[in-house]
Amino acid sequence: MDDLSKDQNDPISIHKKLRGKIFIGAKAKLKTTNDLAMLYTPGVAKPCLEIAKNKQLVYEYTMKGNSVAIVTDGTRVLGLGDIGPEAALPVMEGKALIMQQFAGIDAFPICLDTKNADEIVAIVKAIAPGFGAINLEDIETPKVFEIERKLTEELNIPVFHDDQHGTAIVALAALYNALKVVGKSHTTDLKIAIVGAGSAGYAIAKLLSFAGFSDIVVFDSKGAISNSRLEEYKKELAQLNRSNFSGTLENFVGADVIISAALPGSLPIKTIKSMKKPNIVFALSNPISEISLQQAKELNIDVFGTGRSDYPNQINNSLCFPGFLRALLDLKVKKITPQMKIAAAKAIADSVKKPTKNKIVPDAFDKKILKNIVKKVGESI
Amino acid sequence: MDDLSKDQNDPISIHKKLRGKIFIGAKAKLKTTNDLAMLYTPGVAKPCLEIAKNKQLVYEYTMKGNSVAIVTDGTRVLGLGDIGPEAALPVMEGKALIMQQFAGIDAFPICLDTKNADEIVAIVKAIAPGFGAINLEDIETPKVFEIERKLTEELNIPVFHDDQHGTAIVALAALYNALKVVGKSHTTDLKIAIVGAGSAGYAIAKLLSFAGFSDIVVFDSKGAISNSRLEEYKKELAQLNRSNFSGTLENFVGADVIISAALPGSLPIKTIKSMKKPNIVFALSNPISEISLQQAKELNIDVFGTGRSDYPNQINNSLCFPGFLRALLDLKVKKITPQMKIAAAKAIADSVKKPTKNKIVPDAFDKKILKNIVKKVGESI
Repeated sequence: MDDLSKDQNDPISIHKKLRGKIFIGAKAKLKTTNDLAMLYTPGVAKPCLEIAKNKQLVYEYTMKGNSVAIVTDGTRVLGLGDIGPEAALPVMEGKALIMQQFAGIDAFPICLDTKNADEIVAIVKAIAPGFGAINLEDIETPKVFEIERKLTEELNIPVFHDDQHGTAIVALAALYNALKVVGKSHTTDLKIAIVGAGSAGYAIAKLLSFAGFSDIVVFDSKGAISNSRLEEYKKELAQLNRSNFSGTLENFVGADVIISAALPGSLPIKTIKSMKKPNIVFALSNPISEISLQQAKELNIDVFGTGRSDYPNQINNSLCFPGFLRALLDLKVKKITPQMKIAAAKAIADSVKKPTKNKIVPDAFDKKILKNIVKKVGESI
Repeated sequence: MDDLSKDQNDPISIHKKLRGKIFIGAKAKLKTTNDLAMLYTPGVAKPCLEIAKNKQLVYEYTMKGNSVAIVTDGTRVLGLGDIGPEAALPVMEGKALIMQQFAGIDAFPICLDTKNADEIVAIVKAIAPGFGAINLEDIETPKVFEIERKLTEELNIPVFHDDQHGTAIVALAALYNALKVVGKSHTTDLKIAIVGAGSAGYAIAKLLSFAGFSDIVVFDSKGAISNSRLEEYKKELAQLNRSNFSGTLENFVGADVIISAALPGSLPIKTIKSMKKPNIVFALSNPISEISLQQAKELNIDVFGTGRSDYPNQINNSLCFPGFLRALLDLKVKKITPQMKIAAAKAIADSVKKPTKNKIVPDAFDKKILKNIVKKVGESI
């Protein structure tokens, strides 16, 4: 295994050297003809026949129960847009590497050379027998919502769209601790603005609503999402808009919390200045956050979080997905519920013993997170 | 890694203990936030963007160049028939294990929940961006011939159907050495019977024909395949039947070589007794060969080979597929040619220094095989 020396700060040379960040390893060593006969033909026929009689035994005799397909079509990779399935592979390998190191999961990238939603559904259904869970990744919206919904309905293994739910779970975790820091209790009185209605914004709004926050206005490029919207998934978001506010983000005043998963520049200073103090702002755009740490200080934001590793309070889904997928596999979950996601958010929040202004989420390398998530998700079932 | 102790002769308990014979390993260890930033976001964006500009770079920056999809629909697993994709998984994991240990290949099982040939073609095409080669496995005939043909046409990575070509290559290797042992030269005079027209029989007949053997009669359950046959792929086999023999296998006299890939009991004693001495019989049915070693001795067969590990001369495709796939990957082959298969057969044959009656193929653990195959296949291009 390569130990990345500290002077290697060039991702290209590191990727060139590794030629793949993961590999397929052997759990047993074949030394003799008898080993071959036990693990391959003819011995392997025995577990095969038992599974043929009782499909559930595939969890006992194979890797299925520990393996995750990381599925993408390469249409929305990081902030890079539609770069295709080959170019998406380094990201998917990176996720697989994180899943292995942080959670001991056997995750394998499946990069698809089709952008058709129905085809993606058919393919994922077809490859599902060998996997214990599906992680959808970097697929464009709104297509991905439909893909996730159909697969969740039709498969009997869990389907997790990390760009949505990983981000939402970590944002909720950060919010729980930020509210502790500012001393606002988690009530229905808090006025929350979500900026951006892509995967992250959509899922954050819905999860916050499930968690009991009831005054949530989501903004996209056309302004507040209110009852006038026609798209199916935007109608869902309009229902969270209690006052049916229909103006622009710039004219939205008195928010307690703003969570932005949009683009740099999409968060007006005027809106932040009008917030009800003490205030909480999460600016999750990556690699450049919507407002900088310097600006946040100048604006006197009480708790400020971003997706950046060089700022405090990095709200990154790698805090969630290894542990959440570990929980799904260990608990043999068939469908993910909102309760499981809220449990995971609480587990991540609880991994910070004493939240402070600059420490509302745990460190990604904190081993408590995994254990906490598995425990709390287990209790939520 | 588990060391299988010798007293473990129960494949069920071994499979239960391992819960998967392969795992996904990490090639680099994430220790710091900087490591995460290099191998995952934001650093990973650099190789992604370079690949988006030039797709060929996926071979430089990812695992693609060393990874193989082992694709099955579970319709013809070992000799067990249509047992389904879940039950096929232990076999596919076994193949992946062998590919890793014998050839350092990252092979991953893809077990498909569809039996439709067009769907299988569409799925394999869609998942191809992440793989350097496709290994089709245990898919029923004649469907698999069409799947292999279409994928070979439409993909720019090699497609290898091991049940056909792995078996054919090893059978040809064994035949080369058996002919040396009996002192018959490889000429167009040899009369060869192939018993069985499934994947193995079909591919053996075609490869022997490419290799210059020109009097080949293939038998299926209806007797010799001659010009009267209508099925597309049986027409191809009829063309190899130089004398257009149309009788039963029982009435086929004077063969120099019989290669059977059929069922126990399908090889009549009368046919063997009528062979032209010195004779060669390969009885490849597994786990029970068409005739036993005892019978072969009683019939005074000069060179006898089977698929069994407890008999001498085990003609098993594990002698071929690790090295052949290694060669395909290393040489960045786009389409497999008959010349490459013949080269691989010669390489396997040459791995036995001095062939004898009881040693016409090398031992599966002989490390020379891999090197020889890669070298000879390279020379054949």
